[in-house]
Amino acid sequence: MERFFKVDPWNIIEEGFNRESNEIAESIFSIGNGYMGQRGNFEESYSGKSLQGSYMAGIYYPDKTRVGWWKNGYPEYFAKVLNSTNWIGMEIKIDGDILDISKCEVRDFKRILNMKEGYLYRSFTARPQNGKEVKVESKRFVSIVNKEIGAISYTITPVNFSGAISISPYLDGDIENKDSNYDEKFWDEVSKKAVSGEASLTIKTKKLDFYLCSSVKYDIFKDNVKLRYEAEKVEKEKFVGNIVTLKAGENEEITIVKYVSNVTSRDFKVEELNAVGKELLERAYAKGFDKLINEQAAAWEEKWKQSDIIIEGDTAAQQAIRFNIFQLNQTYTGEDDRLNIGPKGFTGEKYGGSTYWDTEAYCIPFYLATADEKIAKNLLIYRYKQLDKAKENARNLGYKKGALYPMVTMNGEECHNEWEITFEEIHRNGAIAYAIYNYVNYTGDKAYLSEYGLDVLVEISRFWEERVNFSEAKNKYVMLGVTGPNEYENNVNNNWYTNRIACWTMEYTIEVIDYLKNNEPDKYRKLATKLGIQQEEIEKWQDIIKNMYYPVEEKLGIFLQQEGYMDKEQILVKDLDKENLPLNQKWSWDRILRSCFIKQADALQGLYFLQHKYDLATIERNFDFYEPRTVHESSLSPCIHAILASKLGKKDKAYELYLRTSRLDLDNYNNDTEDGCHITSMAGTWLSIVEGFGGVKVINGKLTVSPFIPQQWKAFSFKITFRDSLLNINITNENIIITNEGKEIDLLVKDKDYTVKEGDKISV
Amino acid sequence: MERFFKVDPWNIIEEGFNRESNEIAESIFSIGNGYMGQRGNFEESYSGKSLQGSYMAGIYYPDKTRVGWWKNGYPEYFAKVLNSTNWIGMEIKIDGDILDISKCEVRDFKRILNMKEGYLYRSFTARPQNGKEVKVESKRFVSIVNKEIGAISYTITPVNFSGAISISPYLDGDIENKDSNYDEKFWDEVSKKAVSGEASLTIKTKKLDFYLCSSVKYDIFKDNVKLRYEAEKVEKEKFVGNIVTLKAGENEEITIVKYVSNVTSRDFKVEELNAVGKELLERAYAKGFDKLINEQAAAWEEKWKQSDIIIEGDTAAQQAIRFNIFQLNQTYTGEDDRLNIGPKGFTGEKYGGSTYWDTEAYCIPFYLATADEKIAKNLLIYRYKQLDKAKENARNLGYKKGALYPMVTMNGEECHNEWEITFEEIHRNGAIAYAIYNYVNYTGDKAYLSEYGLDVLVEISRFWEERVNFSEAKNKYVMLGVTGPNEYENNVNNNWYTNRIACWTMEYTIEVIDYLKNNEPDKYRKLATKLGIQQEEIEKWQDIIKNMYYPVEEKLGIFLQQEGYMDKEQILVKDLDKENLPLNQKWSWDRILRSCFIKQADALQGLYFLQHKYDLATIERNFDFYEPRTVHESSLSPCIHAILASKLGKKDKAYELYLRTSRLDLDNYNNDTEDGCHITSMAGTWLSIVEGFGGVKVINGKLTVSPFIPQQWKAFSFKITFRDSLLNINITNENIIITNEGKEIDLLVKDKDYTVKEGDKISV
Repeated sequence: MERFFKVDPWNIIEEGFNRESNEIAESIFSIGNGYMGQRGNFEESYSGKSLQGSYMAGIYYPDKTRVGWWKNGYPEYFAKVLNSTNWIGMEIKIDGDILDISKCEVRDFKRILNMKEGYLYRSFTARPQNGKEVKVESKRFVSIVNKEIGAISYTITPVNFSGAISISPYLDGDIENKDSNYDEKFWDEVSKKAVSGEASLTIKTKKLDFYLCSSVKYDIFKDNVKLRYEAEKVEKEKFVGNIVTLKAGENEEITIVKYVSNVTSRDFKVEELNAVGKELLERAYAKGFDKLINEQAAAWEEKWKQSDIIIEGDTAAQQAIRFNIFQLNQTYTGEDDRLNIGPKGFTGEKYGGSTYWDTEAYCIPFYLATADEKIAKNLLIYRYKQLDKAKENARNLGYKKGALYPMVTMNGEECHNEWEITFEEIHRNGAIAYAIYNYVNYTGDKAYLSEYGLDVLVEISRFWEERVNFSEAKNKYVMLGVTGPNEYENNVNNNWYTNRIACWTMEYTIEVIDYLKNNEPDKYRKLATKLGIQQEEIEKWQDIIKNMYYPVEEKLGIFLQQEGYMDKEQILVKDLDKENLPLNQKWSWDRILRSCFIKQADALQGLYFLQHKYDLATIERNFDFYEPRTVHESSLSPCIHAILASKLGKKDKAYELYLRTSRLDLDNYNNDTEDGCHITSMAGTWLSIVEGFGGVKVINGKLTVSPFIPQQWKAFSFKITFRDSLLNINITNENIIITNEGKEIDLLVKDKDYTVKEGDKISV
Repeated sequence: MERFFKVDPWNIIEEGFNRESNEIAESIFSIGNGYMGQRGNFEESYSGKSLQGSYMAGIYYPDKTRVGWWKNGYPEYFAKVLNSTNWIGMEIKIDGDILDISKCEVRDFKRILNMKEGYLYRSFTARPQNGKEVKVESKRFVSIVNKEIGAISYTITPVNFSGAISISPYLDGDIENKDSNYDEKFWDEVSKKAVSGEASLTIKTKKLDFYLCSSVKYDIFKDNVKLRYEAEKVEKEKFVGNIVTLKAGENEEITIVKYVSNVTSRDFKVEELNAVGKELLERAYAKGFDKLINEQAAAWEEKWKQSDIIIEGDTAAQQAIRFNIFQLNQTYTGEDDRLNIGPKGFTGEKYGGSTYWDTEAYCIPFYLATADEKIAKNLLIYRYKQLDKAKENARNLGYKKGALYPMVTMNGEECHNEWEITFEEIHRNGAIAYAIYNYVNYTGDKAYLSEYGLDVLVEISRFWEERVNFSEAKNKYVMLGVTGPNEYENNVNNNWYTNRIACWTMEYTIEVIDYLKNNEPDKYRKLATKLGIQQEEIEKWQDIIKNMYYPVEEKLGIFLQQEGYMDKEQILVKDLDKENLPLNQKWSWDRILRSCFIKQADALQGLYFLQHKYDLATIERNFDFYEPRTVHESSLSPCIHAILASKLGKKDKAYELYLRTSRLDLDNYNNDTEDGCHITSMAGTWLSIVEGFGGVKVINGKLTVSPFIPQQWKAFSFKITFRDSLLNINITNENIIITNEGKEIDLLVKDKDYTVKEGDKISV
């Protein structure tokens, strides 16, 4: 296996200048704070391979849709994560020649992502064609304490000459999205201003009127002594900056410290943007770089206290899980309930949109266990707020009632356009309902149900009610024309998972209605009136639950992924010549569709979600049938299988599957890290360790832990927050030690009851 | 019903200037000769609504594909019918002002398509803003005698003034395709030349290097007296022309007669194009306009002798069927076996490509019965020549052997990209095999089988062999993941029609092999070696034929369109609120897919093709089940149903269905005639009359006729060529009179045997 980065428990380290894989490194070295993010691009000019990317959470663009053949019901636009003002840039000239290391001999190149403290470090020595060598060292971060602030310290030292160094810090709003469908640029200039030492630029999206105001201020030092300078101003279309030219002697260190604030019309009135940006900038400037970066380290220390996983005996695994936790925490902080978790976070543009069912199925468990309750709650509220749009979406597709949440969205409107996914991959609605159950089950926050939960559950149940039809031929309800999580099947009938999650939604909705009737009768009466809940519809749901058709293979005792699955030629992945893999690159689409091969957990996704409803033998029969037919060509696949394998005691299989996600991006496993990191899949790796190896789940409100250690590891430990307790669960081959930094907790470890007092620990 | 055109038995007449519907009229008034074609655009400048279109058969452009989401196996390009040099144009200026009737008051506007003689006439009086009225009269045609030649006679007469008339005949190669995917222009200039009275322009496609050389020569007359003139030359990028300015007195007729030749590198060497074009032009010029147009009328008279249908008592039906026959004869003449029949012929760009299964399923029967044998034969040879590409296509999709013909093609390569069609609508392969059977059965030309037919049949059978798989669950062969002719179902399993036509292909291939073994053993031995025919594969085909799974509904005694069809909610079209129709405009795609509604004949398409294999009761049970569920939202649908209804004695139903196609374009029934006429569907109307009302079919080599008259008609008659006989079959309410202008023939009329001698007639 080719390793791009040095293995280290707390850092991602790149040594040597790898021009070809620079875009991969840029993805990996992305920094973010849930509010904004920045790929690992260079500050100085660079004409080599690079995907420039600065992103502001929630700022998107409704790019005109591109389709081959239009189908009724397609949305008019595809929302794009919007590349925004490049605020890191500073052009460096050495005696008049632009420093561009793609055109230099480069020595001692190093990039380090310091995950413990949350900053990106870079250093190198470059020899341009003119022979004037410089040494460069930079540090930058986006603050998780003052979210609008980014700061860079950039030091350049002449190695073998004395001469003129000119530094031009700038803000460049004249950027484009690589994935723009029609090569359009998405931003217009609103205003700009430059004076010596400061500049600001406001740009505005061509549609939807998002404003972004970036302000910059900087100091320059020579050998750590702050200089007075008078800078030249630079103003171009959507571009503003300064130029400062200095004389530098051999080995004299010239340092520029650049402070930037980015504020947007999502948070402030347009007319206030300049003033607010300026004020935030001044505050950061007053603190200075060292104080800011120390605050950053302290804040990250707190994050790690809640969410760290320690793996002993496997540094590559240690690095990988920390990288995943780090990126998840960089992507979403839960402070803003209008935001969600894009598949690429702040690390690339691909897939557009911000919200997929990945959030509910994979990310929510991570945030539930590693952060305050309100973080996961805000992800739920995000969908609650978009309920009206989901109802509108259902209406657009011809449904008389109910809500269909979109496959991909920014603001609640569908922006995906592939009929077999957009219209048919409707199981997403089930995952959104399931997340409510999952949240309430984990947190015990039953108040959520009357406040937000029931509205969503009722509308989703209504959707399912209308989406099924009664088959006279079968004398059962059926669900025709769907795509399950296994997207290597399209437009199938009676996908077991979709039928099951649909009925489960109706079951749970009825359960919640009963709970509220009994426990919050006043609130329920109001809700029932508001939502227009009819007794007949509840009866209809009960009838559907009772008479739903579930395809099964009787002889094998398994649920059938869909009707007719057994008509396919049955081949196992292990018996397939390796040259056929990955199928999605090697086979034509129709061949994939016809085959029995499965992209990702489908029937097994249902058994994972509803594992409390099925006995082990049933889960095992299905696992043993489906996993050998699964090619795991979605990054979301192996984790679910790893968890089920763990549950079934298939330790080696669990570890093998865990390995397929753990270093997905770090080792560029799918050969696509250059497009950005697989942020939502990262939660899957966490799930593999905590729910899989750790055997953590919540049954009837009680935390249960049932861990094992993969034989490749010596020990591992993870932190989880459960209600008012903060547990550190440490597993070695000898014992399980559970420390509780929060309130007293009763839990089940390996099927036995324990109580862990506040500040206490137990050893099992 | 809004009628755009006046009803007349031999002419399409537009009276009054209808700016809004001009593009519809342009489609209807298209002229063509199988080699080139021209929409009914105006010669003079026109800034109103217009789709300019001049087309050269077989000249196409591989435009970069546009898709939303790429699927492995998609072709890189989509072949476009190429709009080419505008050769009809002449700019007219009246005292310096350009004549543009979109900006004039227009009186007495008239366009007439004279179908009997094959030309387009137009006249109008226009009053521009300057008040100087002119009367214009033009005639134009593309010659079916000298296929490279087009000619226009254009007369302009000052009505209320004397002044300067300037006429600028030109060739404009700077044109674009409306449907260009990326707004690119597809032509480059090669050379141009203008002298007084003559000009030529050669352009070349940016890809594939098709050259088109257009040459023009013209005379100008005043009150029919030829003028001497010295023209000004005009040369621009891809544009060449002349300007002649004349003084014209009130009521003086100024006439320009423009002769054009268009020659291409498809027929001549590039270096010869200019000379050949010039020579052909001079020859036409020497003949003069009157002689050319007389030749044209004579040639059309011959065409009508072979193909006319006369309907008494219904002029609208009479006009419509002649319009269809006229357009089919304008589109394809069978002289060039590299050509085929585009869905829009020479009347528009839409759908690109030239060849769909429409040719085999709908057009071949028309040409078989109305033209020389070689015409239909050339359509078969077209596919024979593309066999290697069809094998390559199968290989690209992962098949080890066999051939899959493309869904849409220009040169044998697939250029369609919608997975559910491109990869799955494979029944097209069956129609191509069926066309061989149909041709041999009709013509008796068994020599075709060893010369061309077997190659194609064997490779298609091999494709089917590999495309099915054995289902252990059913203990039968199954065909998974297909789209039948009813494109309102996608990716279904065991589509009855596809399964049936696949097995039929294998049955027929084995039958042909047996025939050749017995009758042409030497040729067969060579063929068997060349094609590598293995006994095992024949046995495999037999096994598949014997053990194919066919879905049926036992209680109703019908074949099931596909597995699971009966699980759908069963609603009849008549019970659907009309506001839902047409479904393809009113419903989202997923709703259409889930519904039981059928776009076009599917199971019934199979029963139409193979009607000799099924008893009437079986056909009737299926018809009675499926037709009421069919929305006929393909222009190819009603004709098949009309034929079956006729066969079943459901006369009113047959007539009702016939009506849905008969004036499809003339009455703009589908609201899309502006994109061009539905050329291939036109054959369906002919089929409805001849195979439907006429009850014509060939059983075991014998022509059988079993007609009835729709009660709305007094009488009807049609011409058919059958082998060496040319029959005129005249049906009245009293009797059937059959006249034979060809060799003696034995035939079956209403189940009784008759012999009609050469030159004789019988009355039944």
